Amino acid sequence: MTSILVLNGPNLNLLGQRQPEVYGSTTLADIEAACTAHGDASGLSVSCFQSNHEGALVDAIHAAKGVRDGIILNAGAYTHTSVALMDAIASVELPVVELHLSNIHAREAFRHKSYIAPVAIGQICGFGAHGYILALDALRQHLLGRTSE
Amino acid sequence: MTSILVLNGPNLNLLGQRQPEVYGSTTLADIEAACTAHGDASGLSVSCFQSNHEGALVDAIHAAKGVRDGIILNAGAYTHTSVALMDAIASVELPVVELHLSNIHAREAFRHKSYIAPVAIGQICGFGAHGYILALDALRQHLLGRTSE
Amino acid sequence: MTSILVLNGPNLNLLGQRQPEVYGSTTLADIEAACTAHGDASGLSVSCFQSNHEGALVDAIHAAKGVRDGIILNAGAYTHTSVALMDAIASVELPVVELHLSNIHAREAFRHKSYIAPVAIGQICGFGAHGYILALDALRQHLLGRTSE
Amino acid sequence: MTSILVLNGPNLNLLGQRQPEVYGSTTLADIEAACTAHGDASGLSVSCFQSNHEGALVDAIHAAKGVRDGIILNAGAYTHTSVALMDAIASVELPVVELHLSNIHAREAFRHKSYIAPVAIGQICGFGAHGYILALDALRQHLLGRTSE
Amino acid sequence: MTSILVLNGPNLNLLGQRQPEVYGSTTLADIEAACTAHGDASGLSVSCFQSNHEGALVDAIHAAKGVRDGIILNAGAYTHTSVALMDAIASVELPVVELHLSNIHAREAFRHKSYIAPVAIGQICGFGAHGYILALDALRQHLLGRTSE
Amino acid sequence: MTSILVLNGPNLNLLGQRQPEVYGSTTLADIEAACTAHGDASGLSVSCFQSNHEGALVDAIHAAKGVRDGIILNAGAYTHTSVALMDAIASVELPVVELHLSNIHAREAFRHKSYIAPVAIGQICGFGAHGYILALDALRQHLLGRTSE
Amino acid sequence: MTSILVLNGPNLNLLGQRQPEVYGSTTLADIEAACTAHGDASGLSVSCFQSNHEGALVDAIHAAKGVRDGIILNAGAYTHTSVALMDAIASVELPVVELHLSNIHAREAFRHKSYIAPVAIGQICGFGAHGYILALDALRQHLLGRTSE
Amino acid sequence: MTSILVLNGPNLNLLGQRQPEVYGSTTLADIEAACTAHGDASGLSVSCFQSNHEGALVDAIHAAKGVRDGIILNAGAYTHTSVALMDAIASVELPVVELHLSNIHAREAFRHKSYIAPVAIGQICGFGAHGYILALDALRQHLLGRTSE
Amino acid sequence: MTSILVLNGPNLNLLGQRQPEVYGSTTLADIEAACTAHGDASGLSVSCFQSNHEGALVDAIHAAKGVRDGIILNAGAYTHTSVALMDAIASVELPVVELHLSNIHAREAFRHKSYIAPVAIGQICGFGAHGYILALDALRQHLLGRTSE
Amino acid sequence: MTSILVLNGPNLNLLGQRQPEVYGSTTLADIEAACTAHGDASGLSVSCFQSNHEGALVDAIHAAKGVRDGIILNAGAYTHTSVALMDAIASVELPVVELHLSNIHAREAFRHKSYIAPVAIGQICGFGAHGYILALDALRQHLLGRTSE
Amino acid sequence: MTSILVLNGPNLNLLGQRQPEVYGSTTLADIEAACTAHGDASGLSVSCFQSNHEGALVDAIHAAKGVRDGIILNAGAYTHTSVALMDAIASVELPVVELHLSNIHAREAFRHKSYIAPVAIGQICGFGAHGYILALDALRQHLLGRTSE
Amino acid sequence: MTSILVLNGPNLNLLGQRQPEVYGSTTLADIEAACTAHGDASGLSVSCFQSNHEGALVDAIHAAKGVRDGIILNAGAYTHTSVALMDAIASVELPVVELHLSNIHAREAFRHKSYIAPVAIGQICGFGAHGYILALDALRQHLLGRTSE
Repeated sequence: MTSILVLNGPNLNLLGQRQPEVYGSTTLADIEAACTAHGDASGLSVSCFQSNHEGALVDAIHAAKGVRDGIILNAGAYTHTSVALMDAIASVELPVVELHLSNIHAREAFRHKSYIAPVAIGQICGFGAHGYILALDALRQHLLGRTSE
Repeated sequence: MTSILVLNGPNLNLLGQRQPEVYGSTTLADIEAACTAHGDASGLSVSCFQSNHEGALVDAIHAAKGVRDGIILNAGAYTHTSVALMDAIASVELPVVELHLSNIHAREAFRHKSYIAPVAIGQICGFGAHGYILALDALRQHLLGRTSE
Repeated sequence: MTSILVLNGPNLNLLGQRQPEVYGSTTLADIEAACTAHGDASGLSVSCFQSNHEGALVDAIHAAKGVRDGIILNAGAYTHTSVALMDAIASVELPVVELHLSNIHAREAFRHKSYIAPVAIGQICGFGAHGYILALDALRQHLLGRTSE
Repeated sequence: MTSILVLNGPNLNLLGQRQPEVYGSTTLADIEAACTAHGDASGLSVSCFQSNHEGALVDAIHAAKGVRDGIILNAGAYTHTSVALMDAIASVELPVVELHLSNIHAREAFRHKSYIAPVAIGQICGFGAHGYILALDALRQHLLGRTSE
Repeated sequence: MTSILVLNGPNLNLLGQRQPEVYGSTTLADIEAACTAHGDASGLSVSCFQSNHEGALVDAIHAAKGVRDGIILNAGAYTHTSVALMDAIASVELPVVELHLSNIHAREAFRHKSYIAPVAIGQICGFGAHGYILALDALRQHLLGRTSE
Repeated sequence: MTSILVLNGPNLNLLGQRQPEVYGSTTLADIEAACTAHGDASGLSVSCFQSNHEGALVDAIHAAKGVRDGIILNAGAYTHTSVALMDAIASVELPVVELHLSNIHAREAFRHKSYIAPVAIGQICGFGAHGYILALDALRQHLLGRTSE
Repeated sequence: MTSILVLNGPNLNLLGQRQPEVYGSTTLADIEAACTAHGDASGLSVSCFQSNHEGALVDAIHAAKGVRDGIILNAGAYTHTSVALMDAIASVELPVVELHLSNIHAREAFRHKSYIAPVAIGQICGFGAHGYILALDALRQHLLGRTSE
Repeated sequence: MTSILVLNGPNLNLLGQRQPEVYGSTTLADIEAACTAHGDASGLSVSCFQSNHEGALVDAIHAAKGVRDGIILNAGAYTHTSVALMDAIASVELPVVELHLSNIHAREAFRHKSYIAPVAIGQICGFGAHGYILALDALRQHLLGRTSE
Repeated sequence: MTSILVLNGPNLNLLGQRQPEVYGSTTLADIEAACTAHGDASGLSVSCFQSNHEGALVDAIHAAKGVRDGIILNAGAYTHTSVALMDAIASVELPVVELHLSNIHAREAFRHKSYIAPVAIGQICGFGAHGYILALDALRQHLLGRTSE
Repeated sequence: MTSILVLNGPNLNLLGQRQPEVYGSTTLADIEAACTAHGDASGLSVSCFQSNHEGALVDAIHAAKGVRDGIILNAGAYTHTSVALMDAIASVELPVVELHLSNIHAREAFRHKSYIAPVAIGQICGFGAHGYILALDALRQHLLGRTSE
Repeated sequence: MTSILVLNGPNLNLLGQRQPEVYGSTTLADIEAACTAHGDASGLSVSCFQSNHEGALVDAIHAAKGVRDGIILNAGAYTHTSVALMDAIASVELPVVELHLSNIHAREAFRHKSYIAPVAIGQICGFGAHGYILALDALRQHLLGRTSE
Repeated sequence: MTSILVLNGPNLNLLGQRQPEVYGSTTLADIEAACTAHGDASGLSVSCFQSNHEGALVDAIHAAKGVRDGIILNAGAYTHTSVALMDAIASVELPVVELHLSNIHAREAFRHKSYIAPVAIGQICGFGAHGYILALDALRQHLLGRTSE
């Protein structure tokens, strides 16, 4: 069975806990539950991890090697500064889908730069929590394509 | 019934016509047919247009105002140079999903710049033809969310 | 009788058609009518053209050579990207007044750059539709000055 | 009666005093007289001030608060370097029309930058002494528009 | 009672332990004691935390939400590189005073850039250990101001 | 028989029509006739096309695929701004010789940048109308070399 | 008795005179009175000066040499452009505390640059009028430290 | 006996575990064993540490103060982003040799920048695992030189 | 008789008044006396002026027109920021020799930029007070050359 | 009889001596022989010189003055760094055709910059050894044109 | 027997001849003798050459082709400016170790740029004369590795 | 007796040999003769050298060590590109006066950069051949000052 790691970076643990009238009440737990449920429905084993520590995210990517078939990565702020995450992804040679809740290309200039992009297969951003579902579909399709080659 | 315009820009008419052993044999017609079929299956009326002319794309966006509910735009090379397309989208006030077949953030530096992004709701790139299906799903979900507000 | 071409670029055809409570209800037709009327009152033959196509604007500038005495050009978004329009103006050697509805120097940085400016006699921006009347006065005065030399 | 301050910055006191066969014989006194006359003819009370001192120009802008209805400002070389003038305009909250005798966008690169533009309603440049008349018309129209709201 | 977190970042644990004849003998413990004492004298409950780990600092900011009324943050070297700390502060919506022992604007160019500044209420730098006392006074005054609104 | 497309971009239709005492009286028709004649003399079938429209040039390059053996392209001002032309050339996989009448590297800085160069086999510039003859010779030699491999 | 000059630059004379419902009603006179009172309470002789003229501020710094023990300088807009003020401070060798009412590092990019910082002992910004009191405390502490060496 | 810390940063724990036919089968354990053996042979006590966590590396450098005589640091990706590591090295005042397996100056531009270099005595890169042996020799020689002064 | 203005800018009035053991005891009065004496000896009428006010320097340059034959200008810090002084020199069309006491090209980068240079005949820097004598010789020679043409 | 110098710069002496299966077996001697032969056939006296020394190339350009009618210059790597060659060409006032074997505009960014271009009549690149023949034709045509004026 | 060229560039002939109390008394002759001795001890034939002439260094690299097995290159100041040396190394296809006496990455910014690095196998810097011994070891190991493949 | 080397770089051997009606008829021999004569008159032994070779200029600077008391250096085009000359001057520790015939700061931007300036005592430019005389006076005065210390 295909196994996917959904990996979330700094500050994403706070989702839904502040100003629900503005940002909505969806929490990270809700997102992770939705990912698991969508995985169940589409034949994917989904496991989730979140950390505010750059090194812990690097460790998690290393640990996925040989265990997971692909990663959905919302690296949060580390997207824009972490060469270490970039190198970690390149090292484990797993397909990674880069994900952002907001449209980072429409925000401040320093958020346009991504160290994840050069080692990811693709990027989805701007669709909020629904983006995780799209990312699972995109990754599953990518893995099917590779299998059928 | 929700109506979506799938708009493709320069050089995309050549898809699948050259080196099918390399780029695959999917043509623009195939993509447009898949979009229409996926639309039928998910309650969307999909219509498609392609042009190599920047002005013709601006005209098409203008014409969508009041007729379509949203646009999926693969602006091709004009993504990186066209302030006119950016202004056209801003003028018609329709939700636009930016789409690219390849992961533009992993290619040449001049392809990292997008004039579409600041006026789009989100971006999907790197998933080939399957990206159009993801974009339709993303746009439908976005429109559902707005309706339910 | 002095003859002037009022040339408008991409997206200006949409003026007044959206959110009139915000942007006002002045349409491009209103502006063109006001230009013609002001021309009649001040001894200028005014003709107008608008296109969303960069090439069509280049063609229009070429066609003005030997037929018009000067051009008022609101190149819209092409102001910031079109070397072709710049070269077209230099080729026909007609006096051009650069015009913008908004104060482009107070907007995004990429709108501060004008390829039209180096080949224009002057620039008027920020005065809305009234700017066209000011531009006609400025161009008429410029042509009078040249005639009297 | 509407009252307008015509404010001129460094070196503009020398206008018309050197090489009249090249630059014309129009002096600053001529321009100020023309402004006053045009004001009389169009119902504007026009007063004029020139200084080579940045601080004196800041003082003049301060003094206009509550006394004038708007300012026509040719800040000369301070246009490109003076954050203090920018802040002064922002402080007094009077409408300012930015004016330049020459087309600054067609000159050296450092003259393309304007600290006045972000706090001005619009800019007129390249039309020589006639630009002041255009600026008075533009400002009067702007004030009329505000009154009629 | 108003509660303040004094948060120190990488390398600040070494204060006073090296070259006391050069940098003085004030240790981080001395600073934290002085902060607590000054808090006692001025009606503030002060607690302190230091870490060399970016993620641990993010965690500490998260944990302050709903528990502290404000934060004094000397982010050390992470000031110049951490988008994650910037986002953490924005997430918890607590007032933050940015503090540096040295005048960072008089040092190397890369230390002039602060990711903390855009989400802080103000910055104090260059006054050594005494800066913490000034920061407590500034934050208390800020909180009083908000309360009185 | 080897077939070559000579493709000219914006403003080149005006060649020889203005200031012949300055720029010479050679028109685009003269150049195209000289190309055809030189082609006849050297065993090349030469056809010519000019347009001021970026999209029309893209279309012409697409249409050359499978019909022409190579292209001589003077893209005029689009050389410096058109990613779409760059992508079109890459798509049709025909050898392209980049040509400019003037020495673009000795002109304004923005004319030093060429989007055509990375997808062209070589560049000839600065030799006026004679450059087209040199380009035909260069392209013929290139095609002979490929044939002989 | 320790003597301090509180020096304010361009536009600060307008404080509290506009939009008191937005910016508060604190005037420069209020600030200067608070500084004097705080000085009296803490054993400092405080005198104040404001000018919109860069040269007058340079003169004031020169005049402080041998008369004052230190300077609190809010250079306003000249902070970002005045090499002359920077050189003046370096010449008189008095300790200077740089002060800004707003957090300049959270505003436009051109306000992040300070010519005062390299010759100041420290910077306080973002705390409004209260910043002057903090600055007096910081400077007094700095002078005490020097005396005790 | 001279004591050296060999410190390795993010992703170096994966050495030799992937694609041994490409990158060779040398693991980090092999490198650390070789360092220890070379140390034994040349009179150096060598201890080793690796972490993917930036903060843990800062801690390790702090802990080396007073315990080790020098450090060989392969900071991996943190080389290019970590001001905190730079400051940590400056704080402990131990001689550091900067080491990289690959020639970082021949790779992507963002890898040319090193925050370690300004506080290191020298740099060795491009010699693979053998570089560690060279670095030990370089550091021993450096320490001998200092001792003999 | 040839008449020369020696014009000194901000902070130069402080020369020789501080730390004579470091900077020497030469005052501005000494320099001006030496200039006058050297002028007497070489047939030049020398007058001197110093101001800390940018506007006063602009005024002095204006006043020199028709009265002096040339100017020796040490613009101090305004060298690097004043477009107004640049324009003033261009306006009066007098030969100007740019002078600096120190070698500005060997100091901070922002002092390498001179707005005076493009409108000066030449520059002398790095020779201390003796530079004024060299500048007088250079200007006299320049004027002799022009006279003899 | 028209006399042409074919001047080759650093490393071009190695042509054809390494990896003939990759770069072809054409040596510099072959190219020089082809140039001489083509010169004989078209009425040009061709002489050739190569050096790896920048100064020797400058000397050769000086020596050509009054002896040659024009120069074909492949400056190799000095193209991108030598202001001295640029000045030498400007000094001797001979027409120079800039030549490169490869298409330098499609290679690394630092090879796009040419100090030769601003003082050359035109540039030919990307056509390998055949480029020399094209350059001879271009230069002969250029000289014919000048003669016929 | 393996043969190595030790190549030194401009100004290195002066080593040890000036201020021996500061820079040490090691001369270039000492270094070359140490290299030869170390070569003898480790089975390498070492020959040495130094020149202040860029062209002479290019010649020496050319001459090493087919004669030497590798080069140790301290290009001195030409490291930062010479594309010609870069191309020469690429042409002869010999392994090159880049060497610098000082840690160039800790010096002025213009010394961080190396044209040698992209064509070298590795870089050693900051270890003074001992660096040559390290470089010989590194090169020998590299050649052994290649032989054993 | 004080001994001075007057050192001239590339292309200066051509002075006075081309277009004497434009550039004057002063040759390098004339300048060198004038330098010698002025030296004789002011107690300086002057010797002269010119080369187009960067390496030869480096050699000449080396040779001056211990033989000359100072150098007047017109490095011509190498001023802007030669780190080697910069290092050579730093190595020999002789006072150097940088000289240029033209005002390099009023020419192209790439001529504003000088690698000589940071190691020279001062710069004289823009005064043509007379600049050499001024430079001799400046250097003599500098040497006198050092002697009298």
